[in-house]
Amino acid sequence: MKHLSLLTDFYQLTMMNGYLKNDMMEEEVVFDLFFRENPCHSGYTIVAGIEQIIDYIENLKFYEDELAYLSSLGTFGEDFIDALRNFTFKGTIHGVEEGTIMFPHEPILRVKGTCFETQLIETALLNVMNHQSLIATKAARIVTAAKGDPVFEFGLRRAQGPDAGVYGARAAVIGGCVSTSNVLAGMKFNLSVMGTQAHSWIQKFPSELEAFRAYAKAYPDECLLLVDTYNTLEAGVPNAIQVFKELRARGHEPKGIRIDSGDIAYLSKQARNMLDAAGFSKATIVASSDLDEDTITALKDQQAQIDGWGVGTNLITSKDCPALGGVYKLSAAEQKGELIPKIKISNNPEKITNPGFKNIYRIYDRKTQTAQADLITLEHEVLDESQPLTIFHPIYTWKQTTFSDYRLKKLLTPIFVEGKLVYRRRSTQEIKEKVSKELASLWPEYKRLTRPQIYKVDLSEALWQLKQNLVNENKIPPQK
Amino acid sequence: MKHLSLLTDFYQLTMMNGYLKNDMMEEEVVFDLFFRENPCHSGYTIVAGIEQIIDYIENLKFYEDELAYLSSLGTFGEDFIDALRNFTFKGTIHGVEEGTIMFPHEPILRVKGTCFETQLIETALLNVMNHQSLIATKAARIVTAAKGDPVFEFGLRRAQGPDAGVYGARAAVIGGCVSTSNVLAGMKFNLSVMGTQAHSWIQKFPSELEAFRAYAKAYPDECLLLVDTYNTLEAGVPNAIQVFKELRARGHEPKGIRIDSGDIAYLSKQARNMLDAAGFSKATIVASSDLDEDTITALKDQQAQIDGWGVGTNLITSKDCPALGGVYKLSAAEQKGELIPKIKISNNPEKITNPGFKNIYRIYDRKTQTAQADLITLEHEVLDESQPLTIFHPIYTWKQTTFSDYRLKKLLTPIFVEGKLVYRRRSTQEIKEKVSKELASLWPEYKRLTRPQIYKVDLSEALWQLKQNLVNENKIPPQK
Repeated sequence: MKHLSLLTDFYQLTMMNGYLKNDMMEEEVVFDLFFRENPCHSGYTIVAGIEQIIDYIENLKFYEDELAYLSSLGTFGEDFIDALRNFTFKGTIHGVEEGTIMFPHEPILRVKGTCFETQLIETALLNVMNHQSLIATKAARIVTAAKGDPVFEFGLRRAQGPDAGVYGARAAVIGGCVSTSNVLAGMKFNLSVMGTQAHSWIQKFPSELEAFRAYAKAYPDECLLLVDTYNTLEAGVPNAIQVFKELRARGHEPKGIRIDSGDIAYLSKQARNMLDAAGFSKATIVASSDLDEDTITALKDQQAQIDGWGVGTNLITSKDCPALGGVYKLSAAEQKGELIPKIKISNNPEKITNPGFKNIYRIYDRKTQTAQADLITLEHEVLDESQPLTIFHPIYTWKQTTFSDYRLKKLLTPIFVEGKLVYRRRSTQEIKEKVSKELASLWPEYKRLTRPQIYKVDLSEALWQLKQNLVNENKIPPQK
Repeated sequence: MKHLSLLTDFYQLTMMNGYLKNDMMEEEVVFDLFFRENPCHSGYTIVAGIEQIIDYIENLKFYEDELAYLSSLGTFGEDFIDALRNFTFKGTIHGVEEGTIMFPHEPILRVKGTCFETQLIETALLNVMNHQSLIATKAARIVTAAKGDPVFEFGLRRAQGPDAGVYGARAAVIGGCVSTSNVLAGMKFNLSVMGTQAHSWIQKFPSELEAFRAYAKAYPDECLLLVDTYNTLEAGVPNAIQVFKELRARGHEPKGIRIDSGDIAYLSKQARNMLDAAGFSKATIVASSDLDEDTITALKDQQAQIDGWGVGTNLITSKDCPALGGVYKLSAAEQKGELIPKIKISNNPEKITNPGFKNIYRIYDRKTQTAQADLITLEHEVLDESQPLTIFHPIYTWKQTTFSDYRLKKLLTPIFVEGKLVYRRRSTQEIKEKVSKELASLWPEYKRLTRPQIYKVDLSEALWQLKQNLVNENKIPPQK
């Protein structure tokens, strides 16, 4: 990741300078990074971007040209510019392992440090986490719809800029895609890359048959042909079969065809029959054409004969929901040397924050090894797995569940401790495997694409009580 | 722009290698980059990203680590790797000036070069152009809704990765925003940056009043206060007024307040009254809270007392339409030494391409200086402004319009000629001014936010005839 120290909102700098001017820049605070709603009507969210956040933090430093620019704005004095010049990140960041499945209101990252450093990094942390978690989650939905068929990420040309293409491809593979078309992402993250030919290849030749032959000549063992340039069933598939026969006569087995337009259900069934009748029952049919989880579900429901799905725009932009609304909220602040829990009140109960220095436990059933619920606690609370555990709904408190044969997993673990990286870095492949295990631990009801069951995220009694007390202390009169 | 030579789809490389293997890599082709539909129900699209495309082309070259990576994939032989090692872009690119308003089916870029080089650059050109043109257009819609009030770009935390934030901020300012919160974009493109304080600042202090005082102390002449942390009308505005009075007593005039939640229409009208009654009629009220062109229109319709609009997620992701569907289609190809017009046929008439080597003329009324229509012609056609000009609808050919007192502007001008940059580069400010002139030349009917009138884009008779001939030659039987 390139140098991104200025990838921040200007108000972070005005606040940092304000803390300096008020002699508060060294005071400690705690921020939680979390989201309030799963994206794309999903029942869960896959956390992605931790590796890039680590890169960002490790490269945080201000260069002279940046300081000169900030100085030129006229807002800041030399004291602030000097503070930035001498800046190194010394905070402590806990977070979940990349690839963990998370739910609304759960801290994904917990940042403890000075007012100064914790404000500086807010925007970049949100930017990276919001983007990659969104795309990983969208990819997981599309892969779920494909029911075991491979899904190929094809969206670079429609991504929102180069990074959206590159980190989006990474997130898509983490979420379950088998490959990307994006060569730069392939190199950067060791992803499998895939691609054959475009319509322009077919058009470049005097005829489709000549174009297919030229491709087969260059790639006798990787021959997958795009058959919809002129007429899929009248021209494309017959021409492909002709070239496949020629290939086989030369001792090569063809890969198959790609259909990029028209009615994929109808065309694929006809094409399948034609390929089978010609003796190419192992030739695969790949579809690509404005696909998403809904279209793939509908096409499979109509027995479309598709063996692999190339997904572009709708995946790389998460078209139906192009932003995950992650936020970064103050949960504790030093006052007179003591760290005091803080709450943000709102007329909208969903927007009231969980105060204090917290952690999260995932409760697994020991028999099935499936996740049963999550419990947000204060960090100092100790849970005893040998005792039954009763949790309750934070609003409808009479809704209670008791677990007896369970194990707990603490989700927030240290990433940086006083500025020092302590997290073991993971390859994209390892993160992808983590996601696959996480999804396997989740009941299918939570993974349903439409109206999934809502996973339980409860508060410990101590945290619940703290929250009630702070809400009452900060009670606000009704407001239109 | 960083090094992006591998920012391409893998199939571009397999095709390039295929052309090499078929001894065709030096054959000439022409591609048009265009879109088929304006984004966000807009009546027009603002072209943005030309400067970044120039950076990309100027930096095109393959480094040894990239070549080693490509080599490791097993798909390519040493001949191809050598061809990349020796690669320099020698093509000719015509395009519109950045900031030009364009319409569906009009070439924004016309790329002439070898099969090899024109395929390589397709993906990056589309990525950059699709993203920045989308955000510039979305910004122009939001600015139109704000009817002269300033619009501030605030979206970095929700952007799809760092580049989407940085280039998105650039595009937003080109489209009409007065500033961005994004410091990196501010430095990179010399954009005005803006920001004050977040809820965390208010929460950090024992009380809102103390937080406001601390901010006023640090910024006595730039004091704009966020008033919705606890209760906008019962606490935030009265506390702000208190601090404003203290400021004025010390000889400073306050800037105003920001409201970030609740009903902006109701709250802003009440807050306006309170500020006016307290003698702060010049204090401005800024709104930010999930805004877009529809909400701003509705709030203004209800006389919301807002002086400036901070727009985040919905602008930086173009939330209702997060992708512009730009494509790059072959329009001519060398066959036996001659450049032959090419067409892409489709059952969907909207998807049939315009063949041949083309340019576009914009027809302006000499009296009003407004744009009347565009005419796509073959490049060699000569139009005589002293003669009346009759244009006709390409499908309903009986729909004709004749212009007599008009002037023509040729829209495609050279950017690169045989690999050499010939375009005068523009600052973001100059591009922003270009957009403003372009929008002024467009009748309000085309700029209406809802169901705008459709701007005429016709084909010259020669181009229309060529297209008819090629459609007939390539006629395809009906297909389900």
